[in-house]
Amino acid sequence: MNVQTHTAASAADGSTLDDAELALIDRYWRAANYLSVGQIYLLDNPLLREPLDIKHVKPRLLGHWGTTPGLNFMYVHLNRVIRRDDLDMIFICGPGHGGPAVVANAYLEGTYTETYPRVTEDEDGMRVLFRQFSFPGGIPSHAAPETPGSIHEGGELGYAVAHAYGAAFDNPDLIVACVVGDGEAETGPLAASWHSNKFLNPVTDGTVLPILHLNGYKIANPTVLGRMRDDEVEALFTGYGYHPLFVEGHEPADMHRKMAAALDQALDEIRTIRARARDEGVNERPRWPMIILRSPKGWTGPKTVDGKKTEDFWRSHQVPLSGLAGNPAHLEVLEGWLRSYRPEDLFDDAGRLAPELAAIAPEGPRRMSANPHTNGGVLKRPLRLPDFRALAVDVPAPGRTVGEATRAMGAYLREVFRLNADARNFRLMGPDETASNRLDAVFEVTDRVWLEDTIPEDVHLSRDGRVMEILSEHLCQGWLEGYLLTGRHGLFSCYEAFIHIIDAMVNQHAKWLKVTRDLTWRRPVASLNYLLTSHVWRQDHNGFSHQDPGFVDHMVNKKADIVRVYFPPDANSMLWVTDHILRTWDRINVVVAGKQPELQWLTIDEAARHCDAGIGIWDWASNDHGHEPDVVFAAAGDVPTLEALAAVSLLREELPELRIRFVNVVDLMTLQSPSEHPHGLAEATFDGLFTTDKPVIFAYHGYPQLIHRLTYRRHNHRNFHVHGYREEGTTTTPFDMVVMNGLDRFHLAMHAIDSVPGLAVRAAPVRQRFRDRLIEHHDYIRATGEDMPDISNWVWPYGAGQS
Amino acid sequence: MNVQTHTAASAADGSTLDDAELALIDRYWRAANYLSVGQIYLLDNPLLREPLDIKHVKPRLLGHWGTTPGLNFMYVHLNRVIRRDDLDMIFICGPGHGGPAVVANAYLEGTYTETYPRVTEDEDGMRVLFRQFSFPGGIPSHAAPETPGSIHEGGELGYAVAHAYGAAFDNPDLIVACVVGDGEAETGPLAASWHSNKFLNPVTDGTVLPILHLNGYKIANPTVLGRMRDDEVEALFTGYGYHPLFVEGHEPADMHRKMAAALDQALDEIRTIRARARDEGVNERPRWPMIILRSPKGWTGPKTVDGKKTEDFWRSHQVPLSGLAGNPAHLEVLEGWLRSYRPEDLFDDAGRLAPELAAIAPEGPRRMSANPHTNGGVLKRPLRLPDFRALAVDVPAPGRTVGEATRAMGAYLREVFRLNADARNFRLMGPDETASNRLDAVFEVTDRVWLEDTIPEDVHLSRDGRVMEILSEHLCQGWLEGYLLTGRHGLFSCYEAFIHIIDAMVNQHAKWLKVTRDLTWRRPVASLNYLLTSHVWRQDHNGFSHQDPGFVDHMVNKKADIVRVYFPPDANSMLWVTDHILRTWDRINVVVAGKQPELQWLTIDEAARHCDAGIGIWDWASNDHGHEPDVVFAAAGDVPTLEALAAVSLLREELPELRIRFVNVVDLMTLQSPSEHPHGLAEATFDGLFTTDKPVIFAYHGYPQLIHRLTYRRHNHRNFHVHGYREEGTTTTPFDMVVMNGLDRFHLAMHAIDSVPGLAVRAAPVRQRFRDRLIEHHDYIRATGEDMPDISNWVWPYGAGQS
Repeated sequence: MNVQTHTAASAADGSTLDDAELALIDRYWRAANYLSVGQIYLLDNPLLREPLDIKHVKPRLLGHWGTTPGLNFMYVHLNRVIRRDDLDMIFICGPGHGGPAVVANAYLEGTYTETYPRVTEDEDGMRVLFRQFSFPGGIPSHAAPETPGSIHEGGELGYAVAHAYGAAFDNPDLIVACVVGDGEAETGPLAASWHSNKFLNPVTDGTVLPILHLNGYKIANPTVLGRMRDDEVEALFTGYGYHPLFVEGHEPADMHRKMAAALDQALDEIRTIRARARDEGVNERPRWPMIILRSPKGWTGPKTVDGKKTEDFWRSHQVPLSGLAGNPAHLEVLEGWLRSYRPEDLFDDAGRLAPELAAIAPEGPRRMSANPHTNGGVLKRPLRLPDFRALAVDVPAPGRTVGEATRAMGAYLREVFRLNADARNFRLMGPDETASNRLDAVFEVTDRVWLEDTIPEDVHLSRDGRVMEILSEHLCQGWLEGYLLTGRHGLFSCYEAFIHIIDAMVNQHAKWLKVTRDLTWRRPVASLNYLLTSHVWRQDHNGFSHQDPGFVDHMVNKKADIVRVYFPPDANSMLWVTDHILRTWDRINVVVAGKQPELQWLTIDEAARHCDAGIGIWDWASNDHGHEPDVVFAAAGDVPTLEALAAVSLLREELPELRIRFVNVVDLMTLQSPSEHPHGLAEATFDGLFTTDKPVIFAYHGYPQLIHRLTYRRHNHRNFHVHGYREEGTTTTPFDMVVMNGLDRFHLAMHAIDSVPGLAVRAAPVRQRFRDRLIEHHDYIRATGEDMPDISNWVWPYGAGQS
Repeated sequence: MNVQTHTAASAADGSTLDDAELALIDRYWRAANYLSVGQIYLLDNPLLREPLDIKHVKPRLLGHWGTTPGLNFMYVHLNRVIRRDDLDMIFICGPGHGGPAVVANAYLEGTYTETYPRVTEDEDGMRVLFRQFSFPGGIPSHAAPETPGSIHEGGELGYAVAHAYGAAFDNPDLIVACVVGDGEAETGPLAASWHSNKFLNPVTDGTVLPILHLNGYKIANPTVLGRMRDDEVEALFTGYGYHPLFVEGHEPADMHRKMAAALDQALDEIRTIRARARDEGVNERPRWPMIILRSPKGWTGPKTVDGKKTEDFWRSHQVPLSGLAGNPAHLEVLEGWLRSYRPEDLFDDAGRLAPELAAIAPEGPRRMSANPHTNGGVLKRPLRLPDFRALAVDVPAPGRTVGEATRAMGAYLREVFRLNADARNFRLMGPDETASNRLDAVFEVTDRVWLEDTIPEDVHLSRDGRVMEILSEHLCQGWLEGYLLTGRHGLFSCYEAFIHIIDAMVNQHAKWLKVTRDLTWRRPVASLNYLLTSHVWRQDHNGFSHQDPGFVDHMVNKKADIVRVYFPPDANSMLWVTDHILRTWDRINVVVAGKQPELQWLTIDEAARHCDAGIGIWDWASNDHGHEPDVVFAAAGDVPTLEALAAVSLLREELPELRIRFVNVVDLMTLQSPSEHPHGLAEATFDGLFTTDKPVIFAYHGYPQLIHRLTYRRHNHRNFHVHGYREEGTTTTPFDMVVMNGLDRFHLAMHAIDSVPGLAVRAAPVRQRFRDRLIEHHDYIRATGEDMPDISNWVWPYGAGQS
């Protein structure tokens, strides 16, 4: 940022803009508005060279005018200061349907043509630009992945400010101009995200400049903030920690002067804050400026339509004029509206923007539509990753020693922080659960970021921390999305049950990733990585309300090539998985593992081989010795693996002649057919593991139906008997919890007896003993509040070579 | 509310409390604190009659102390004013783990014993009370359905204020004291829900008295609001429209006086506001009071443990003292802590609360733990419902006329509002989409509620409206949950894609309903009803970001007896479904239907018969004439029904000898086995519809896997070929959208040709024609932006009797 202040440039009347500059800005604004209305309405006659005819108008009018002129207004004013001060600035368009505005501006800046060469900067190109908007085979009406300069999908509202902060972290020179519509401002995630300023370091992070755009209306209603009095709005944002600067009115020249002055003041304040923090070393949470712009909805559009108030009212939300085919008067109003921008004054004979207007836009990567931060893959540097083998947990024999998977991940992440300390391109997000989730090794090398005051007793809080904790899954998700989309890396650790809070957010991110895969100009970004822990099976402190393993089900509905789900069964597996996911791009990786001490199964080499395959037979747990087994046990998840292995040991003890194979699943997508998922095992490989006709007792971490769904095209699907979460639970012991859902060793072993042909009769006494032991456990737990020692102290009774 | 003011009761020193009252309140507080610590720690020796021994302590310590003393503090102060002013007040405990406090208070008030007679008001009962807490077979550590006086599950945070407002609507005499922890205050939904005050009518609604409890810490971290300065906190809540009253400190006597004074002031303000609105008719949005209580976390607990700050710090979040078995010093601290409350001064020899303390609690239904509003089923009155047949849409023949399903629902809801206008017990919620979703008939009899200023052009806004619109699905859901749980009725209409925003909230509500089914003292509440519209297949205005039919998948993971999913295929079906769901209780009903004009299929009598069965053959669309068909077409959803019928007509035209049966599914759960869902069809009935061996071409509204999952135990499952949403789409025409996902008539018809043995060869030319027509459509759509007229104008070509 150029440190010269703007005051010298102020006009003689004390305002920031002189008349000539104002006139240019107003013309540029008109050009953007013209292109916006054109996109919504026109199929042809883009420069109105002929009188407007119904044949020039799209047959289906799909678009949103209401927010657009305000967006165009902000955009040109931001351009002014970018150019003057050589700012590194990006634009986040919160209002959902602001597509026409951001597309129009990208076109005016030349970026659109550079990105999509068929949309040339002439009359033909303008025709293409107009036609493609909300048209089959064209572009959506939102700011979208297809939109140059966008990192923010304008579909579901609420995430603009979180995305903006995510982009600003660790980008000290960046200013993120973030427009929030007054509809969006009613949402919960947005209401919380104003507090992101408590997590932004003025020395090492950039700046978010929020512009709250109050045009007063949603689809058919006034908005809460739009109708609040200025004194309340001012109090609210002062309370949120901002310095609100108001710009209110409707007369263009007056508004241009006010907006320019407000922006100049905001930039002065930003400069001052940065200087205090960076040059003077002042430690404070700054009161960053923000702009509150009250401008009419549908500004410059028809004031009334059919006698009804339209400009400055909700009737201008979508298309103010419709049914044009049957309504020549409307067509006439549309023509008058388009001509009111005087296209002949804006574009030359060829249809190219007038050179004196083109000259006021920023150039090259300073254009907000071409800023490389908005195509983060361009800036992304791979993480430097440690050797995960060096962090291995010692496993002298399977199932004899105890370890904590998430603690191993914590050690790995500590090394990631250490190795990338200079690059400053990795962050860990979580709702106040980093330590609780046993990732606290990271605090050996970094802290939680915290800009508020601290007291001497506080631990691991600092202005420069790279761990971000706030009790808002929405903010963790939104920050991380913004961080990834601007070319950095991260991981979000969350209680499993509460990750559903961001179901809808991750939907949009998955859709973003799907669309960007077809856009070669968008470079891959780092994957969105989740650790889901404190999972359904270990909720001793909590109970029924904290139990829901369904996020995996939700994700599996997304496009197959985007989603991966991993169930590392132990600490060494977790190390491999963590290392793996941080090397991937354009994916959503879901890792599910508990934080409690559990038995360990695999050495680091075994874990690496196993996880790399994603699924495999554990020979040491099987006794089929290369023969066809009588029954296959399978497990996906740490607790299911434990219970399934314990069931195997019970059966091997009681029924040594029974041939059992044990299969462990790390990569859930291996189960699906290869036609449905790129990780799906070939049919023959699958049949080789699971047989084509033997019973499979499958212990699964989540809802059993998901395993049926993933395997329903497999040959042996009919013999899959899946145990998992049946929506039963409360505050109880770990073992009681699995019993309540039939996932415990005894239920699994009994099911095996029931499934192997002929065994039920022969093994009836064994089955009865298992049932008796279940009752014994039940009574003991209710009497003592604890699991029986033979559960708490159980270990795998065989050696590794003793299969 | 007793209108006498409290001033006469103020003590001579100007404070509200005199010393005697203060002493009683402090003792009562100590009793609640003692019972809370006892619940967390003690198995036995509940009155400390013997020296504390490790055998008296629970082996597994599971609970949360930090928030508890503050909750107990508020509770006793609220009791004081309830009793003095005869208030109708309920208590919403936002802090997740506040279970020990609300249970302790219910016990002190006698409600706990009335509800659970085995927990007697004596030493034995106290032993049971302590033991059951977070103990196998006992109660969870949250305020939960099991907790008398609770309508709010303390699991996932963020919804306390929304629930409180939901309870207050249409309960003009009620005051809802709503405690918000400073952890919860960081969440998005909570941050938005402060704005609920813009929707509360001071004449006809009750009052929410928020108490923001800033004890400064979460699990392991300070909180954002806890560390904000008072001036910012005050500005924030002033901006939200409240009058914040601060109570800050730690010395008990001082804090008692401050809290009493603040409560008295708050009640004075509430009385004044009500009088101005109700008696003087002043039209304004009042500035309701709220209390901001800053008290130490873990107040009155150990100041330090092992030399580390514990009281007034996050270390007191859960159990401040642990590992007692191996640490006699900790056991000693625990005993000292328990004895610091002087149990002998609180409970008599039998273990019963001292009579002078019992005397300061409210009585009967005035006890917050026994207020009937917290067991809403007790107060619930059935809705008066109209005759849905009187609203029937005329359908002279199937598939010849056009109608709008949601418009029919709107007409029905209009009658519901009309018939229940006096009862004031029905509300419609939606994020600004009531008109857009074509439910606007309701505006003939009611308005949107709106307490802010209005302008002359505003339509259907009033202080007394019963439609609630805010662009926050979280608030719509939270308000409705609170409204239902206090005994009223409602419906939430939402864009299908965005209902995922409340995935996590509805999880908790489903869990609440499941648990209450086992609690005979909780009476059934009205079902939670959703209309999901603007669905995936009709997103012309929007595009890929607005497409996600996965909410149904999410709900189907919940307990079978709670969830119902309906896909009414036309307007008359929608009338039956709407009528039906409003008569049910303790369920979650999901209704999915589009808002666009579509062909109508059934007369009202046919619709009633068909929907009552939930599934059935449409004879008029079939030509199997009672024989075994060659192929079964099935459809669930309005657009799938249209496309499947169009496919049937194509095949009947081209291959008249092919025997086709058409099955329509309204109640999705009929597909599941009866062992898995109470609505599941008997196996024989299912086989009678779908055959056991013929191909079934199933056109489904959502993700195809769900149909496979629901039917995977059915005999003919292997022959189910499901077409549905494949996560493909953009802004395009309605027909192009189904084509992109293979759900269109041509793909369905081709799949039938491929599936019927022997047909593929014979009908190859027909199949080729279908494929050619797909290409023709594709080209036409991209050239014109419209669907071909033979799609837009298609009607069912046969009569009803012509099968």
